[in-house]
Amino acid sequence: MTHFADAITAAALAKSPVCVGLDPHPDKLPEGLSADAAGVKEFCEGIIDATASVACAVKPQLAYFELLGWEGMKVFWEICDYAKKKGLIVIADGKRNDIGPTCAAYADAYLHELSPIDALTVSPYLGSDGVTPFIERCDKNNKGIFVLVKTSNDSSGELQDLPTGDEAVHEHLAQLVDSWGLAHLGKTVDLSSVGAVVGATYPEELKYLRTLMPHALFLIPGYGAQGGTAKDVSHGFLEGGKGAIVAASRSIIYASKGKDWKEAAGKAATKMAEDIEKNS
Amino acid sequence: MTHFADAITAAALAKSPVCVGLDPHPDKLPEGLSADAAGVKEFCEGIIDATASVACAVKPQLAYFELLGWEGMKVFWEICDYAKKKGLIVIADGKRNDIGPTCAAYADAYLHELSPIDALTVSPYLGSDGVTPFIERCDKNNKGIFVLVKTSNDSSGELQDLPTGDEAVHEHLAQLVDSWGLAHLGKTVDLSSVGAVVGATYPEELKYLRTLMPHALFLIPGYGAQGGTAKDVSHGFLEGGKGAIVAASRSIIYASKGKDWKEAAGKAATKMAEDIEKNS
Repeated sequence: MTHFADAITAAALAKSPVCVGLDPHPDKLPEGLSADAAGVKEFCEGIIDATASVACAVKPQLAYFELLGWEGMKVFWEICDYAKKKGLIVIADGKRNDIGPTCAAYADAYLHELSPIDALTVSPYLGSDGVTPFIERCDKNNKGIFVLVKTSNDSSGELQDLPTGDEAVHEHLAQLVDSWGLAHLGKTVDLSSVGAVVGATYPEELKYLRTLMPHALFLIPGYGAQGGTAKDVSHGFLEGGKGAIVAASRSIIYASKGKDWKEAAGKAATKMAEDIEKNS
Repeated sequence: MTHFADAITAAALAKSPVCVGLDPHPDKLPEGLSADAAGVKEFCEGIIDATASVACAVKPQLAYFELLGWEGMKVFWEICDYAKKKGLIVIADGKRNDIGPTCAAYADAYLHELSPIDALTVSPYLGSDGVTPFIERCDKNNKGIFVLVKTSNDSSGELQDLPTGDEAVHEHLAQLVDSWGLAHLGKTVDLSSVGAVVGATYPEELKYLRTLMPHALFLIPGYGAQGGTAKDVSHGFLEGGKGAIVAASRSIIYASKGKDWKEAAGKAATKMAEDIEKNS
């Protein structure tokens, strides 16, 4: 098995740093799909088929599967398996967070040895008690986590930008994240299994956070529908196009709501990959 | 239908402020139960039966159900229904957090009109974008949320206690939480549908946070196994024993691992209720 940082770096270099966000709201599916768990499954598998040759990863968003109760969770695991078999890195976007034995239960739920999921997003408000159990499973099972550092939304600053001494809360957290990863580096890259979520919508912060977290893989949401550009996300990369993947959801998966939705998603992912490449 | 703050206040005054944390790790169930979804269901229903006459609420912890995949989520919804039918307030402990349409999906998943769940715990790192969609569903469906403010774990201070100006991050957040709830008060109490999680293990902070959040219901974890005492939690209450519920999990649900586990759980819940009453 391969360390998560090595695996995702190799995949991003071989294909592109594009990560397709699977946010399948049952009421928003394209023409011809049913507004239920079966429709969500068909939609996700279609998007995976259409983008697997260009994207390095998919990021299923747990909320949309939980919305359909346990039937949705069944589909969640099925589409994670499907993506894994298609050679994609699978990042479960759950922003999970808890402490001690409960945090360990989340880690065992998503990052167990046989899980099709390669990495999970994690929310940091609880401090290292909410992160350490995840890192233990990452080490054991070659998995990864992405800790929310500076998110892409308008109100992210309410807590994340609070000034604390000479730095903002998210800058302080960034240094913690880098330190948490130091003992967990890959074999072929100087990057750790402890990554960071940093939004494309704050390019200045992204540039500075890259210096504060030299060992963290960046998962960069906010490209496309949220307004982030390829120029903006370029600040998240290290030399040689390493160190970051860029997530987009709506601009790819809903590129068309007509019968050509698969084809349109594939084209949108390809265009995004070219856009990032051109601006790198 | 009744506003969440009115409903939980009435239940706590009629029975006790005890909230039973359902943290059913399949490998830790008492004698005679199978280490799978069926065992977890039997265990949770047994604990509910044993404590429903004394506790006002149960708090199933989603991590332990997610640990069992979709079969676990099926049991999660079944035991929420079961608890609701037994007259308990049901608080799903998921610490969910996301933004915009994704946050709305979480809100619709757990706080929809026909959901047996009365309230959900929410993690605040994303700011108000991660809270507003929940509050909208609370208003519409008479539900509640509990936002993490100061958690009970050792490392909670790493982010929550960072100094920002004259106050700590969690104190700043506390004021936001109170303000978020101001337009969403109950009819019989001056408390809102936007509650706060404040750990029993930091009694001084608990006392001060009570003054910063006069309109917030407190969900207080950390009593019992984590070290919080009845004296500690007393600081979280308002006059007349209102405004707070106290959660305990291990000290109740694992009071005995032998065949008398149900009886032992009932006794532990009763003892806890008496302990809190005596120190109020």
